[in-house]
Amino acid sequence: MAGDGVEVAKLEEKELKLCEDQVSHLALDIGGDQGDEAPAGDKHIVKATGGGAFKFSDLFKEKLGIILDKVDEMSSLVAGANFLLKAVHHEAFTYMDGVKDYVQIDHKDLYPYLLVNVGSGVSMIKVDGDNEFERVSGTSVGGGTFWGLGKLLTKCKSFDELLELSHQGNNRVIDMLVGDIYGGTGYSKIGLTSTTIASSFGKAVSQNKELEDYRTEDVARSLLRMISNNIGQIAYLNALRFGLKRIFFGGFFIRGHEYTMDTISVAVHFWSNGEAKALFLHHEGFLGALGAFMSYEKQGCTDIAHQFMEEHSSVAKSPFCTSDRLESSTHTDVKDNGCIECRVQVRN
Amino acid sequence: MAGDGVEVAKLEEKELKLCEDQVSHLALDIGGDQGDEAPAGDKHIVKATGGGAFKFSDLFKEKLGIILDKVDEMSSLVAGANFLLKAVHHEAFTYMDGVKDYVQIDHKDLYPYLLVNVGSGVSMIKVDGDNEFERVSGTSVGGGTFWGLGKLLTKCKSFDELLELSHQGNNRVIDMLVGDIYGGTGYSKIGLTSTTIASSFGKAVSQNKELEDYRTEDVARSLLRMISNNIGQIAYLNALRFGLKRIFFGGFFIRGHEYTMDTISVAVHFWSNGEAKALFLHHEGFLGALGAFMSYEKQGCTDIAHQFMEEHSSVAKSPFCTSDRLESSTHTDVKDNGCIECRVQVRN
Repeated sequence: MAGDGVEVAKLEEKELKLCEDQVSHLALDIGGDQGDEAPAGDKHIVKATGGGAFKFSDLFKEKLGIILDKVDEMSSLVAGANFLLKAVHHEAFTYMDGVKDYVQIDHKDLYPYLLVNVGSGVSMIKVDGDNEFERVSGTSVGGGTFWGLGKLLTKCKSFDELLELSHQGNNRVIDMLVGDIYGGTGYSKIGLTSTTIASSFGKAVSQNKELEDYRTEDVARSLLRMISNNIGQIAYLNALRFGLKRIFFGGFFIRGHEYTMDTISVAVHFWSNGEAKALFLHHEGFLGALGAFMSYEKQGCTDIAHQFMEEHSSVAKSPFCTSDRLESSTHTDVKDNGCIECRVQVRN
Repeated sequence: MAGDGVEVAKLEEKELKLCEDQVSHLALDIGGDQGDEAPAGDKHIVKATGGGAFKFSDLFKEKLGIILDKVDEMSSLVAGANFLLKAVHHEAFTYMDGVKDYVQIDHKDLYPYLLVNVGSGVSMIKVDGDNEFERVSGTSVGGGTFWGLGKLLTKCKSFDELLELSHQGNNRVIDMLVGDIYGGTGYSKIGLTSTTIASSFGKAVSQNKELEDYRTEDVARSLLRMISNNIGQIAYLNALRFGLKRIFFGGFFIRGHEYTMDTISVAVHFWSNGEAKALFLHHEGFLGALGAFMSYEKQGCTDIAHQFMEEHSSVAKSPFCTSDRLESSTHTDVKDNGCIECRVQVRN
């Protein structure tokens, strides 16, 4: 791969199955770019990672004649995160109470940290250095839960639609708050204010209502709150467990959604008594793709990797330029569900 | 309170509002028992704990002329748990793979331990001694979430109906397993077998089905699995955090349901790599009630408390006798949602 660079794409499982045209088109791009440079016989080999790289390996081969060169998911995520945190000026930021603050990362003080990748499920990876990491935890309550349960409860047609619904909702309609039980003073003796959620969806128990009687917006909001809170809590407990000061949240679940980031931030703040902060990544959904690309360097394909990194670093001072190059992909309707991450596009 | 003893009751919030007759009947019992012994003016004072003791305090006073002497919920739970663990021969047990094993507790080696009370929400309390404790954590994803979400998803009419549905279900229909993504070998490199749940409800994302197309049994099963797993994981992380070897699970959510106990046990086993075990309490739903009763001793009402304890200890060698006395209440359709716990019944 040379010339204009390489292209990262994340393909949704549904898209893989239903949109062979789209995939074929992508395959033509892949084949075209590789045509001149790749050794004979490697014409249709593409680096890929994520569960889908394994699950759809045969599909790609049979339908498109593409061989997926599978790269381990965890190492790809870590390599991608490490690269972004070092190469991109405005990559990591905090987000709380509506305020976004970029964080400057000292390269000499990057490790160790906890990387929390929120896809269909959640992986929590302790990163100690370049290619030094361990997946220490995770949870099955992730983006797939939000979307799956959300779809069942609201009949939404997409993840973004569900997020949009949540934006308009009020979680206090369905969640049982401490104040609902203990009154306006909450349970202050144990540090629970009246607005703390005592039981997610707890009000639905005693109200004489059916699902159809609730606004889908409120249901979506409570669901998002429940799942985001939970991720924040488990992430913090693991950071604490390993003495990790920084927690970076990545993956396509967050996708820059303010309420999600705010909820995760508040959860981490709450459980840590203000000692820890949640950090988000600008290119949250592309960690694996970038990391898979980084693996070319390990294989001795240093020219391609170096070219990309130099090119990328040289524009690192202009975060908007970098963002533009990848951001147009960030906002498409793609999900981290059996995704195939293929190439990295850095347009000049 | 004297004579036959005192009565513990747990009243569901709905029952409080709708069944004044029932409550009145209970109140008559309360008033009758206290009539001869209580000082003048204290005729209708009843010890009570739990959120409902606060929330429905005015209701009891206005409608029934009963003054609820509120006892702190956390201290009641701890006092009740400590009492049961010391006084009852077969109180604590492990449950895994269908095998129930009672655990003998050495009174000199009881502390510290983690008490996880699963009601509408979950409280996790580090217990260091008699009346020495700290609520260190909790989660809003508890029994109220299971019931609330379950009611919305399945239109079930009661908690027990939802549990019964789950008994007949198969979680693999809706949960996305590691094997669904990575195939039969799972993701063994990071210790995830093919049957590990990667994403709860994750399959609902890509299947072209609506809620009505799923069996309510499968939905209930996935929901129970998700919530039980989550409780087990967070409980273990907190036990680990404070170096606590024993985790006792109480509260009305579990109610001796095998799949629930098995799931929690498996979760604790999984996350601790087999080092920790989940322990369950036979009188799981009565910790607060007993603890509230124990508070009489602190007030100097030693006769009543001692009589109860002696009476109870003398039958402690016959676990079935003890169980019979309380078990008939355990299986009624009562929930830990704003409950009022009033009295302890020990029938001779």
